[in-house]
Amino acid sequence: MVTLIEYDAENYREEQVASAAQIPATTDKTLWLNVHGLNEPQLLEEIGKRFSLHPLVLEDILNTDQRPKAEDYSAYLFMVGKIFEYDTGTRAINTVQASIVLGQGFVLTFQEKPTGTFASLRERLKNSKGQIRKQGADYIAYSLLDAIVDRYFICLEALAEQAEALEAQVIARPTQKLLRELHGIRRKTLFLRRAVWPLREVVSTLARGDNPLFKRETLPFLRDVYDHTVYVIESLDTIRDLIAGLMDIYVTSLSNRINLQIRLLTVITAIFMPLTLLTGIFGMNFEHMPLLGWEGSFYLLMAFMLAITVGLLIVFWRIRWLR
Amino acid sequence: MVTLIEYDAENYREEQVASAAQIPATTDKTLWLNVHGLNEPQLLEEIGKRFSLHPLVLEDILNTDQRPKAEDYSAYLFMVGKIFEYDTGTRAINTVQASIVLGQGFVLTFQEKPTGTFASLRERLKNSKGQIRKQGADYIAYSLLDAIVDRYFICLEALAEQAEALEAQVIARPTQKLLRELHGIRRKTLFLRRAVWPLREVVSTLARGDNPLFKRETLPFLRDVYDHTVYVIESLDTIRDLIAGLMDIYVTSLSNRINLQIRLLTVITAIFMPLTLLTGIFGMNFEHMPLLGWEGSFYLLMAFMLAITVGLLIVFWRIRWLR
Amino acid sequence: MVTLIEYDAENYREEQVASAAQIPATTDKTLWLNVHGLNEPQLLEEIGKRFSLHPLVLEDILNTDQRPKAEDYSAYLFMVGKIFEYDTGTRAINTVQASIVLGQGFVLTFQEKPTGTFASLRERLKNSKGQIRKQGADYIAYSLLDAIVDRYFICLEALAEQAEALEAQVIARPTQKLLRELHGIRRKTLFLRRAVWPLREVVSTLARGDNPLFKRETLPFLRDVYDHTVYVIESLDTIRDLIAGLMDIYVTSLSNRINLQIRLLTVITAIFMPLTLLTGIFGMNFEHMPLLGWEGSFYLLMAFMLAITVGLLIVFWRIRWLR
Amino acid sequence: MVTLIEYDAENYREEQVASAAQIPATTDKTLWLNVHGLNEPQLLEEIGKRFSLHPLVLEDILNTDQRPKAEDYSAYLFMVGKIFEYDTGTRAINTVQASIVLGQGFVLTFQEKPTGTFASLRERLKNSKGQIRKQGADYIAYSLLDAIVDRYFICLEALAEQAEALEAQVIARPTQKLLRELHGIRRKTLFLRRAVWPLREVVSTLARGDNPLFKRETLPFLRDVYDHTVYVIESLDTIRDLIAGLMDIYVTSLSNRINLQIRLLTVITAIFMPLTLLTGIFGMNFEHMPLLGWEGSFYLLMAFMLAITVGLLIVFWRIRWLR
Amino acid sequence: MVTLIEYDAENYREEQVASAAQIPATTDKTLWLNVHGLNEPQLLEEIGKRFSLHPLVLEDILNTDQRPKAEDYSAYLFMVGKIFEYDTGTRAINTVQASIVLGQGFVLTFQEKPTGTFASLRERLKNSKGQIRKQGADYIAYSLLDAIVDRYFICLEALAEQAEALEAQVIARPTQKLLRELHGIRRKTLFLRRAVWPLREVVSTLARGDNPLFKRETLPFLRDVYDHTVYVIESLDTIRDLIAGLMDIYVTSLSNRINLQIRLLTVITAIFMPLTLLTGIFGMNFEHMPLLGWEGSFYLLMAFMLAITVGLLIVFWRIRWLR
Repeated sequence: MVTLIEYDAENYREEQVASAAQIPATTDKTLWLNVHGLNEPQLLEEIGKRFSLHPLVLEDILNTDQRPKAEDYSAYLFMVGKIFEYDTGTRAINTVQASIVLGQGFVLTFQEKPTGTFASLRERLKNSKGQIRKQGADYIAYSLLDAIVDRYFICLEALAEQAEALEAQVIARPTQKLLRELHGIRRKTLFLRRAVWPLREVVSTLARGDNPLFKRETLPFLRDVYDHTVYVIESLDTIRDLIAGLMDIYVTSLSNRINLQIRLLTVITAIFMPLTLLTGIFGMNFEHMPLLGWEGSFYLLMAFMLAITVGLLIVFWRIRWLR
Repeated sequence: MVTLIEYDAENYREEQVASAAQIPATTDKTLWLNVHGLNEPQLLEEIGKRFSLHPLVLEDILNTDQRPKAEDYSAYLFMVGKIFEYDTGTRAINTVQASIVLGQGFVLTFQEKPTGTFASLRERLKNSKGQIRKQGADYIAYSLLDAIVDRYFICLEALAEQAEALEAQVIARPTQKLLRELHGIRRKTLFLRRAVWPLREVVSTLARGDNPLFKRETLPFLRDVYDHTVYVIESLDTIRDLIAGLMDIYVTSLSNRINLQIRLLTVITAIFMPLTLLTGIFGMNFEHMPLLGWEGSFYLLMAFMLAITVGLLIVFWRIRWLR
Repeated sequence: MVTLIEYDAENYREEQVASAAQIPATTDKTLWLNVHGLNEPQLLEEIGKRFSLHPLVLEDILNTDQRPKAEDYSAYLFMVGKIFEYDTGTRAINTVQASIVLGQGFVLTFQEKPTGTFASLRERLKNSKGQIRKQGADYIAYSLLDAIVDRYFICLEALAEQAEALEAQVIARPTQKLLRELHGIRRKTLFLRRAVWPLREVVSTLARGDNPLFKRETLPFLRDVYDHTVYVIESLDTIRDLIAGLMDIYVTSLSNRINLQIRLLTVITAIFMPLTLLTGIFGMNFEHMPLLGWEGSFYLLMAFMLAITVGLLIVFWRIRWLR
Repeated sequence: MVTLIEYDAENYREEQVASAAQIPATTDKTLWLNVHGLNEPQLLEEIGKRFSLHPLVLEDILNTDQRPKAEDYSAYLFMVGKIFEYDTGTRAINTVQASIVLGQGFVLTFQEKPTGTFASLRERLKNSKGQIRKQGADYIAYSLLDAIVDRYFICLEALAEQAEALEAQVIARPTQKLLRELHGIRRKTLFLRRAVWPLREVVSTLARGDNPLFKRETLPFLRDVYDHTVYVIESLDTIRDLIAGLMDIYVTSLSNRINLQIRLLTVITAIFMPLTLLTGIFGMNFEHMPLLGWEGSFYLLMAFMLAITVGLLIVFWRIRWLR
Repeated sequence: MVTLIEYDAENYREEQVASAAQIPATTDKTLWLNVHGLNEPQLLEEIGKRFSLHPLVLEDILNTDQRPKAEDYSAYLFMVGKIFEYDTGTRAINTVQASIVLGQGFVLTFQEKPTGTFASLRERLKNSKGQIRKQGADYIAYSLLDAIVDRYFICLEALAEQAEALEAQVIARPTQKLLRELHGIRRKTLFLRRAVWPLREVVSTLARGDNPLFKRETLPFLRDVYDHTVYVIESLDTIRDLIAGLMDIYVTSLSNRINLQIRLLTVITAIFMPLTLLTGIFGMNFEHMPLLGWEGSFYLLMAFMLAITVGLLIVFWRIRWLR
């Protein structure tokens, strides 16, 4: 599905395009060609010819395993980014590759499948006649990058929320289930970071303003996007540090519990083993044993056993094993 | 709440401002406009127009989730920092975003809410006629940055004090409660570091003196602020290392205690199990058993059991399990 | 085994070479000399003389313990890389050193033994008359680097698959065997990373375009290879992080199991030791003991023992040791 | 206490100075003003005026919480360093801040309190007429830095000695006390590193020779000091690594001991529990039990119990639990 | 012991030198002065005067605690390196400091004691008239560096071999003794790395070719030495990673064993405690107890105890505690 948008300060035209022939060969308006789905390689090739794209660019657009990058082909700038979709139900994060080609007076965007990321920009173009339509193709490119980065914030907030919910639980009562959830969040953090990190470099390079395709007026906006990517990365690192800290707490809590259990086990054993030995002694069948015949001896032994018990309890209390 | 301060070496005027019209359009004195609370966007917009601020600057001032940064808009310099408020009661650290705009002859400051950070500077401006009033707007900007960094020292000292108090306790007697407190300090350290780190970069850039808005005479002062930020970061790292070391001590102490308890458990079991077995043997009801009828056999067995006990105790003493 | 390929847009000639005399002294076509096996040092020396290679280059080609590098000898460029062969049966990774010399109009390749890595390139050269044959020697050099890096992806995917299979197993049921497998994958990851890391630097240097032997048109292709190496390295790092996380999960799972076992041990001991003591008490042979003669006392004691058991179970349930 | 030293190749004059008026206004000799104790701010201010020091310099001299740094004020160079005093009795390390101002023909030094660090330099100046007195103020500044760094070696050696003594003990027999000592050394290492690290940068900058106050002839000496600081830092890092390794050994030794104790506990329990059960069985009071009446049954049972014991011991020996 | 070698393409003269007077004042041949043992400071001083060495150079030569470095004194280049001697018997690594001074037409080498590192170079100089003798002093300097680095490979291989031998043992059966050996290898790795790391920087600087003392033709050889040092460092890092992995395996193996032992302990306790309780119950001396008089009750109880045992074994088998 290919959508062609052609606009200047006064006019706005949106059209579904089925073949490259529908794309005007020359125009003094700004062109934005938005492609959803990459299953019509022939159409893509025609578009590539129309805008004289390098064969490697077309290859990179089709291969959805690219890492974010920006490549300068003089006549145009080729950028690849990842759009993140956070599924609130399954808590899964899916990626959709988005390629942007910025040329003199045109922007091309290619996505694996529709994500709605660029919809609000289209709305803004359609409705607000004045401001945004006076801007050129580079402003569109900036807005697209901005929309991609905005998506990261949604994922980021979801992860941060999950991590904080886990923090309270781990501190209250660590369980094996929480451990797996911590691992899951760590994986997602790694995943997100791997996509944002190269994008940061890309935007940083663009914001330096060496490329004539981005006008001087657009640079502050790019610096803004750059700030956002840095913020995302630092927040991801904070989540990571938080999870590492929680893992430490989890492990030490476990050790602590083992400690308390073994302590209890030792106390029980230390109290009952001597008592059991005593009963064993007086349960032996020797014919000649002292005390067996005396009337008070049972009560004396009971008192002795109580004394041992109380004595041991006091000792364990003193060495702080019981509080 | 907007306060306008207009001064030169001789004069000082302070005024509450309700609309941008009250701000003099041109003046050869130095202007300092201090805004508390960001809930009157319209007034902010008027101020923005008066000082020709870029729309992104106004947006960044209102969005209190910015990371510290400095952006050069040629005509003025836009800086964002975080003011830290340490609550001695709850031991919580709150942040308030402070934005500073330094232009030719004017400084604008914007805070989410009044923190009193800049009050002492205002006092100094009001009272000391000579020295500080001869300095220009860039000196005011430096003083503001200095006041922000001074606040960090308060938080830093509070954290360092808490960490040292915990150190003594962890070494003396590690408990689960201390673990949570260590985690809490680590979180605050992460939090503080994340705010100071970008500020360090900001001040470092300014102190290099590439920006004409900061006069040559002000640079040594900026270098001083830079030294302070580096000092804060290094101290935070030391606290972090200290806490990591304490975590290690905590964990090894736990293992050590488990070790001692299991040792005690093993000693008790090793001594009482054989004795109990002996009593069990002589408690059996076989009709034909040796020794049962002999008079001295009970005392012989008791002596044998004592010998076993003493022997095992000597063995355990020798292998250093009892000292 | 030495294969000589001589081609231009129209012609293609492939020949087995036994002595350096068979190599044409001058030609306006592109030459590619592919050497398999390094056990004929004399032939290599002749080739070295024919293409005026530095003695160190020949030494490096023969010494198969080189790290990947690119050295600029003005007249030619000497590159060393590692070809990885993944054995799907034993899951072992073997390396074969590949040296590439790119000069004006010629490419020399040297491999320890045939790996088939460069076979597909030879096929493409032989069959497709148009495109690839118009390219010069630098395009051949690029294609060779690309073929080497493509091999890494095979290893990478095998490792990633193994790691993910292990992840599921470790989370489900960690065993000592899995630990050894994790260690094995970590070793392979280290091994691969050590070979790819310097290659990344090599390709990065070449892609900057400082070397006249690589034409401007070939640079985008080199940048593509560079992207691939970066992607391999980042994926290796992700696998590494994943394995580190799995090690953590393994260790905490173990601690968790120890915890549960000790808990069970403590519960059993806490319940049975008091009961056994009670039976011991009433098994003593004192002549004067209470209750022994009363009819209901056995049932009373049984009831008491049941009460103790139920009471302890309730306590352990309450403190969450039994759920 | 202020000491004024004035010298050239022929003359040497040393004098206690009570007011700035005693300092010659101009001289063609080299001046060295050494200040011990910072409790006379007025005198310091007079000195500051005499040598036209910036107010921030005086502030930094008085504030003894500075991190090492070098600041270039064109007319003079301001350096701050830390002198370390190792107390061989308490094994504590104290720091004394030393500030050095190097100007054209003069050196000023300020210390919190006398440490004797600069005494040997004064002796050399007084006695050796020829060599050192021909050198200018920059050589004095170098000698001071060198004296400060020499002090670090004393601390370093003390720490290294302690660490190595601990290493032998930890490997022989790890105890909780050693753990605390390891922590103590780690703290001191952190502390020392934090002071030496910025000094390294300072000396590195000076040794590059950009500052005209340091003559070309003095640069090799500064490079020498630089080498020393790098050596100190690397040695500190080695101590740190060593301690980290010892912590690991400590923890694994603990685990190993727990392992051995639990093994012993398990062996004891596995042997004695079945035997005790057997005695329990034959201690029951059933009227109809087999074997009780047979004469050899006691000896048979004893033999059986011995067989069980020997059998279990063989099993445990085989699975290597007893060796 | 001082050996003087004087050579050019045709001539070669080797002589033991007792005083500096024996060194020719001027010569158009290449001079190599090799000094073994540093216990004749006077002779060293004479040599220093003859070749106009800086006093710091002589000091550095005598002080055998230098870190590897290269210092450019315009007229000559002063290099310090460490020669490693691996003692195959004790597995100890000893270092001998080697200083090299490269000047116009001469090379000076100083070693603490004879190591034989430079012997093979001397042989090559003596015997092969043509090749090496045409090279100048800079080639001798390169050959010396190369000989030093070649020594590292011997140590490296010894360490790698030991590490791999340990790996097999740790995976098969971790013991406390292996832990200490791992620690020993880690120490040696740290030690070696600390010597090679600065050498890498030194050779890297020299290989850039900024120094006119090294001729253009010698640079490829220096780059070769640089490659070797990088290879050594990376191999050391791999050994380090390997050892860290082995430590992890060691610790987890220990935990695993503890886990298995506690499991066994729990199983034994869980089976025997209830059985022992049962025998205790029927060993009580109540006058009125059920079952005691019935003939089959002993066999019934035995059957019941067997049922409990089998039942528990099935349970433990099901929860995978017994396989």
